[in-house]
Amino acid sequence: MKFEVTILGSSSATPVYNRNPTAQLLNCNEKFYLIDCGEGTQQQLIKFGLKASKIDFIFISHLHGDHYFGLIGLLSSMHLNGRIKPLYIFAPQAIQEILALQFKHSDTTLRYELVYFAIDPEQPAVIFENRDVVVETIILNHRIPCTGFKFTEKKRLRKLLVDKLEAKNVPLECYPLLKRGADLTLPGGETLLNADYTTDSAVPKSYAYCSDTLFDVAYFDSIRNCDTLYHEATFLHDMLERAKETHHTTALQAAEVAQAVNAKKLLIGHFSSRYKTLVELLDEAKSVFPATQLAIEGTTYEI
Amino acid sequence: MKFEVTILGSSSATPVYNRNPTAQLLNCNEKFYLIDCGEGTQQQLIKFGLKASKIDFIFISHLHGDHYFGLIGLLSSMHLNGRIKPLYIFAPQAIQEILALQFKHSDTTLRYELVYFAIDPEQPAVIFENRDVVVETIILNHRIPCTGFKFTEKKRLRKLLVDKLEAKNVPLECYPLLKRGADLTLPGGETLLNADYTTDSAVPKSYAYCSDTLFDVAYFDSIRNCDTLYHEATFLHDMLERAKETHHTTALQAAEVAQAVNAKKLLIGHFSSRYKTLVELLDEAKSVFPATQLAIEGTTYEI
Repeated sequence: MKFEVTILGSSSATPVYNRNPTAQLLNCNEKFYLIDCGEGTQQQLIKFGLKASKIDFIFISHLHGDHYFGLIGLLSSMHLNGRIKPLYIFAPQAIQEILALQFKHSDTTLRYELVYFAIDPEQPAVIFENRDVVVETIILNHRIPCTGFKFTEKKRLRKLLVDKLEAKNVPLECYPLLKRGADLTLPGGETLLNADYTTDSAVPKSYAYCSDTLFDVAYFDSIRNCDTLYHEATFLHDMLERAKETHHTTALQAAEVAQAVNAKKLLIGHFSSRYKTLVELLDEAKSVFPATQLAIEGTTYEI
Repeated sequence: MKFEVTILGSSSATPVYNRNPTAQLLNCNEKFYLIDCGEGTQQQLIKFGLKASKIDFIFISHLHGDHYFGLIGLLSSMHLNGRIKPLYIFAPQAIQEILALQFKHSDTTLRYELVYFAIDPEQPAVIFENRDVVVETIILNHRIPCTGFKFTEKKRLRKLLVDKLEAKNVPLECYPLLKRGADLTLPGGETLLNADYTTDSAVPKSYAYCSDTLFDVAYFDSIRNCDTLYHEATFLHDMLERAKETHHTTALQAAEVAQAVNAKKLLIGHFSSRYKTLVELLDEAKSVFPATQLAIEGTTYEI
């Protein structure tokens, strides 16, 4: 099953050096989840050959513009491009008023349904679940209410050892039960132990997205043992005071988070416009947490 | 005096084929006027090496998103980049509410003053005037209230023939009067006729911007004899019915407007996403009005 994230924007605050404000596209089993939507996200999707029409779920971490100013344009283009299937938005409550006001003044009645889910910025919660994935909020510490999102794959069914089942002439209608872990008694009375005829599916993986936040142990429990941690790393550590003042994190701190929560991999992004090149941010993070990568726009990272 | 326009976006409705939604930057005597501001305008400014900080006046034709969704991001970035001088916005009244709502939810208090001027969508009017230029609205015919803008250079002062004035020992303090067209009587009693000691300045030029509109003679008087007419040309003429339905213009019609109002040059833009290449639109317009050019992003056109 595919579980991977493509970076659409990696800049903090303002676009610069061909870096765009934050947006990421998560592909979980060929369903597409957009995480944040800075200005120009729809242009980035086109640039990287990704289809906006495949996105059914959008998650907005907070209402600083570099994380959502592209949303109204994306939704409008979906409308103009003929979308009819519903779109689900998980965001701070006010997003509904902001979008509605703009649709009103453009005299736009969407052809498709927008379904809103207002995120509680105080309590971590499971906010979404389907056959593939569970999404939980992460309560971050920013200047305005801000939540991250942890996407955890669902445990898949057991894999059948089909050759062995066929040798026993096990009827096809028994396969679903076996996939779910049941033992099987054949008509002749023989019992097939599930463990002998199936193997376990892969261990589910998780992706934690921490958009904008002060370094704060309060959210560590929500992201513990994740496979890939995306964490903002707006500044180098020599700018720690500025990071604190603006409720952001340094590259060194992002690495410390990854280490503390026992993440397998770290992806850093949300780079300040003061950094034309990013290698120093990467080196700083790697000095603490070697399995760090830079979030590079247009690049897809396996979770 | 410089009087030129740089195209930042030439696409209608949705961005496509590396074409962005509408925005133009007018340079009149090194003062900068932004006309419309589709999503990604701030990125386009950066891409073409133009400084957002130099823009003091923004004109928004109407509240369809492809003409203003980039405004909130541009204003936010100006704030983050330290702007303190006021910014003047000429737009439909509701823009104030739309911007205020978003600034409220991002807890942003701008460091600079936003000065709003609400455009009357019913009556053409002079809405702005400074030493260089006069701006008048053009009442267009679109699905929602929509105004174009006509920028007309102010007549410059007369040019002094300095060699002749020096030969007559005319004191410097008399030069301003001469520039304004006065004759001069010297202390000895000799009268210098203005026409002998000055020449007329260049004839003022005008730029008419017609963003989104149905072909409609009602606005022709507002743009008569302009030097450069920018006119939307969303479709080829074989799509005339679609153009009427969506209150847009075909390339042929844009050329007919230019011809009817006696424009010197025509610039066409706002191209539908159905046209990957634009040569057919250009050819169609030129068949009626040869002095037509395509609005190409990143290109600067002398008015």
